[in-house]
Amino acid sequence: MRLLFLGDVVGRPGRDAIAAHLPGLKRDLKLDFVVINGENAAGGFGITQKICEEFYALGADVVTTGNHAWDQREALSYITTDPRLLRPANYPPGTPGKGAHVYQTQAGKKVLVVNVMGRLFMDPLDDPFQAVARELARNVLGGGVQAAIIDVHAEATSEKMAMGHFCDGRVSLVVGTHSHVPTADAQLLPGGTAYQTDAGMCGDYDSVIGMKKETAVARFVRKLPGERLEPGSGEGTLCGVFVETDDRSGLAKSVQPVRMGGRLAPALPVL
Amino acid sequence: MRLLFLGDVVGRPGRDAIAAHLPGLKRDLKLDFVVINGENAAGGFGITQKICEEFYALGADVVTTGNHAWDQREALSYITTDPRLLRPANYPPGTPGKGAHVYQTQAGKKVLVVNVMGRLFMDPLDDPFQAVARELARNVLGGGVQAAIIDVHAEATSEKMAMGHFCDGRVSLVVGTHSHVPTADAQLLPGGTAYQTDAGMCGDYDSVIGMKKETAVARFVRKLPGERLEPGSGEGTLCGVFVETDDRSGLAKSVQPVRMGGRLAPALPVL
Amino acid sequence: MRLLFLGDVVGRPGRDAIAAHLPGLKRDLKLDFVVINGENAAGGFGITQKICEEFYALGADVVTTGNHAWDQREALSYITTDPRLLRPANYPPGTPGKGAHVYQTQAGKKVLVVNVMGRLFMDPLDDPFQAVARELARNVLGGGVQAAIIDVHAEATSEKMAMGHFCDGRVSLVVGTHSHVPTADAQLLPGGTAYQTDAGMCGDYDSVIGMKKETAVARFVRKLPGERLEPGSGEGTLCGVFVETDDRSGLAKSVQPVRMGGRLAPALPVL
Amino acid sequence: MRLLFLGDVVGRPGRDAIAAHLPGLKRDLKLDFVVINGENAAGGFGITQKICEEFYALGADVVTTGNHAWDQREALSYITTDPRLLRPANYPPGTPGKGAHVYQTQAGKKVLVVNVMGRLFMDPLDDPFQAVARELARNVLGGGVQAAIIDVHAEATSEKMAMGHFCDGRVSLVVGTHSHVPTADAQLLPGGTAYQTDAGMCGDYDSVIGMKKETAVARFVRKLPGERLEPGSGEGTLCGVFVETDDRSGLAKSVQPVRMGGRLAPALPVL
Ligand SMILES: [Fe+2]
Ligand SMILES: [Fe+2]
Ligand SMILES: [Fe+2]
Ligand SMILES: [Fe+2]
Ligand SMILES: [Fe+2]
Ligand SMILES: [Fe+2]
Ligand SMILES: [Fe+2]
Ligand SMILES: [Fe+2]
Repeated sequence: MRLLFLGDVVGRPGRDAIAAHLPGLKRDLKLDFVVINGENAAGGFGITQKICEEFYALGADVVTTGNHAWDQREALSYITTDPRLLRPANYPPGTPGKGAHVYQTQAGKKVLVVNVMGRLFMDPLDDPFQAVARELARNVLGGGVQAAIIDVHAEATSEKMAMGHFCDGRVSLVVGTHSHVPTADAQLLPGGTAYQTDAGMCGDYDSVIGMKKETAVARFVRKLPGERLEPGSGEGTLCGVFVETDDRSGLAKSVQPVRMGGRLAPALPVL
Repeated sequence: MRLLFLGDVVGRPGRDAIAAHLPGLKRDLKLDFVVINGENAAGGFGITQKICEEFYALGADVVTTGNHAWDQREALSYITTDPRLLRPANYPPGTPGKGAHVYQTQAGKKVLVVNVMGRLFMDPLDDPFQAVARELARNVLGGGVQAAIIDVHAEATSEKMAMGHFCDGRVSLVVGTHSHVPTADAQLLPGGTAYQTDAGMCGDYDSVIGMKKETAVARFVRKLPGERLEPGSGEGTLCGVFVETDDRSGLAKSVQPVRMGGRLAPALPVL
Repeated sequence: MRLLFLGDVVGRPGRDAIAAHLPGLKRDLKLDFVVINGENAAGGFGITQKICEEFYALGADVVTTGNHAWDQREALSYITTDPRLLRPANYPPGTPGKGAHVYQTQAGKKVLVVNVMGRLFMDPLDDPFQAVARELARNVLGGGVQAAIIDVHAEATSEKMAMGHFCDGRVSLVVGTHSHVPTADAQLLPGGTAYQTDAGMCGDYDSVIGMKKETAVARFVRKLPGERLEPGSGEGTLCGVFVETDDRSGLAKSVQPVRMGGRLAPALPVL
Repeated sequence: MRLLFLGDVVGRPGRDAIAAHLPGLKRDLKLDFVVINGENAAGGFGITQKICEEFYALGADVVTTGNHAWDQREALSYITTDPRLLRPANYPPGTPGKGAHVYQTQAGKKVLVVNVMGRLFMDPLDDPFQAVARELARNVLGGGVQAAIIDVHAEATSEKMAMGHFCDGRVSLVVGTHSHVPTADAQLLPGGTAYQTDAGMCGDYDSVIGMKKETAVARFVRKLPGERLEPGSGEGTLCGVFVETDDRSGLAKSVQPVRMGGRLAPALPVL
């Protein structure tokens, strides 16, 4: 199977990058399944039904989120109606929506997606490792599901790498989100799981993690409440990870970074 | 000028990667100046005189550090004798050693190096932006110095990017360290400063930020005091950033990632 | 019933304060049940079998802990043999020992004790509110148990107060530990639960939270690795909370602070 | 001299407690100087000119703040016109207002007040110990000033205690704010400085640090954006510290907690 994961979409530059490049990627890479982390898609803060539908129309199968999941309050009710929108699985019992789900591709293959949030330097939540273990116990790769993708939305590189090794041999891909910067460490772990510490944001890279740089720099320097943060307005770069899996084992055969448009050096997967 | 910056060296795999690749890089890229972040070079924790001298012999001009600067106590006295070893500039007044210094290349060019530590999710220190501003006021790029390199040792991508824009047009290179993962966002900022959010570690990438993965994963999962963390033992990858500067302005003409050996996809700069 | 809870015992000054005052308090206040938080009893770091036995001999029924539970490694095995020693209930499944237990007083009354750790500004753990709710569902106050005590070991006053209100009407006492400073806010919450944000340490108050002040101040000021922290050596103050409960409902009839010896203003409960 | 320091005023219950009790205290205790921490006086968030003037009319000489200083934007300009309103001294250079000032009592005595913010578990700022040292170098107790008061607005008890010992013998009073809970550790430190880890809030104690308890508890339990936090509406307790100083040395002769009204056990200083 051919999987594409795209990192945190930040505001209009991020959505424009998705619109500009995703349909072509879907066609050229013959993608079977596309996941987008959309937690910053709505003006930098949260996600809406309208944006989810835009992403589905462009070729996304699933939208994951993170600590910004509820920045737009409509997501709290919308998520209960849309199984393709996920929020971190380790939110408390009773949280609207789901953190993991098994989807079916057009070709009838089953794909598990788990969205989970790290805890180091983040809001206190329940154990993401237990949360993932629970889902993997229910959905065995190469058994009930033909592919499995873990979006580990976390601050610390150590926690993301630990999740990679924790899942190695049990899922197709562990990919980090939240840092808004693509990492250059795509690799197949020894057990056959594809791994990249962060997918990188889809957004304007002449910015501070996607937001207007002047305002963001001023906050660090002056320590005063300033203007409201808003997304940059330069051309966005699409950032993500492309994985080819073995249809029998569900493990990864290759993993390659994807970067298109905007300011970063382009990276185009080869089949 | 041709500058090479190499990220956090972690234990023996990191030191071996430096030994295996730095002399060749120095020759092939005709490097004028080499900086290595060595805060984890001594068994993963700190730095020693012996290791500094090893680095100098292999071609390093300066060794920077970070939150692990003092893990080996000898560094507290050694640093007062070696102007090539830096610690973060925003430690309190009275801290041994220096956080910034102007060095002279073999060709007689002057290079300012500033080592500074971020504060988001890190130990409380004085303002890194003020610390950098102070050094830049004393050493003007294209005036008193022909190149200037800022090692921003920080956890949060936002703080590193903010430092990049804060310095844009005033230094040759702002490069992050501490996350132990190379980022794929090398770029020339609009003002002419080369930037990469993290240089990445020189170390074993089948690990958790360079440390043996079993022990590190267990800490996240079990929350118990376990075995002592120690560096991984696989072949290390050398990770860093290569920058060519304009001799008159001191600004960057190009910036390219460097990755050699070990598990990550190689990246070799082209002249 | 008459309950006494004593806060974090720090080193020898703390243990000496327990030895000097607990037997008299037990007799004079006709105590039915005594809980001591002992996480810093062994030289400031952790607890041992020997110290637990010392506390039991002096009149303690239960010893609770916190983030320092495992500083002495012997506690990892010892706790599996001693049901009177508790560690936070919200450690991951598989952690040695228990976080909650029902004890029987000499008069045959049943007392639930729950030890739980907060998460704000602390190590990431599972939800302490869920952990407490689980124990309270199993052991109903005025039903299966005649008293219930929650030791909420937490940094933030907000999290401790929230735990107080969360438990109000369902337990006899919610008392905080970990800050090592007694608070002056003992009160009966509207639902009948006794509450105090922090019991305060049993230790030397001419110190920094029980540890030698010179070393501790130097760490804040100089940001260098310094001498090892060790407990102060002045006369310790015993600090805690005394609660009288209604035998039928298990709710509190009164709550009074206890402070004896050392440097703080004394507070002696009146019957 | 007779000094009164009152802790964080939270919303209307806090302001009402000040109005109800401060004039009587001023008269009965023959107060020479009154400081109020007002950072939460305006609906729980920040301070306004109107509220400052209300406090002055009721007998306050100085209003200090903390991390909530700028929650009401008018404070950013108002503070530049009112030397009696302080913000933390360790905000960056260029921050509006001042963090320390010498005031004159009606009897012509000079009192230094320093407002400073801790860093442990708080927003990154410059070193509060250096900031205090700088002010104390300029204003020597028993020399240029007859009294000196340090408001250390901090989360961690360790940092507050360290500040106490750091200043011991050099100021009249070191008192903590920010935790919104009064501590029961008022003492004269060995060098003659009065100390209390936290003054406690002036506000409704049937709450979570002054805010409506239902909303605040729900945030901890449900981890969802909920209703806006707003102050509780029960009768407020006035909380603070009363200090008598030696007119020659400026050091403290006695320190006593003050608690009046609302739910906490009353504490009235005796002369
Ligand atoms: Fe994001
Ligand atoms: Fe995020
Ligand atoms: Fe490092
Ligand atoms: Fe580091
Ligand atoms: Fe403790
Ligand atoms: Fe603790
Ligand atoms: Fe406050
Ligand atoms: Fe505050």
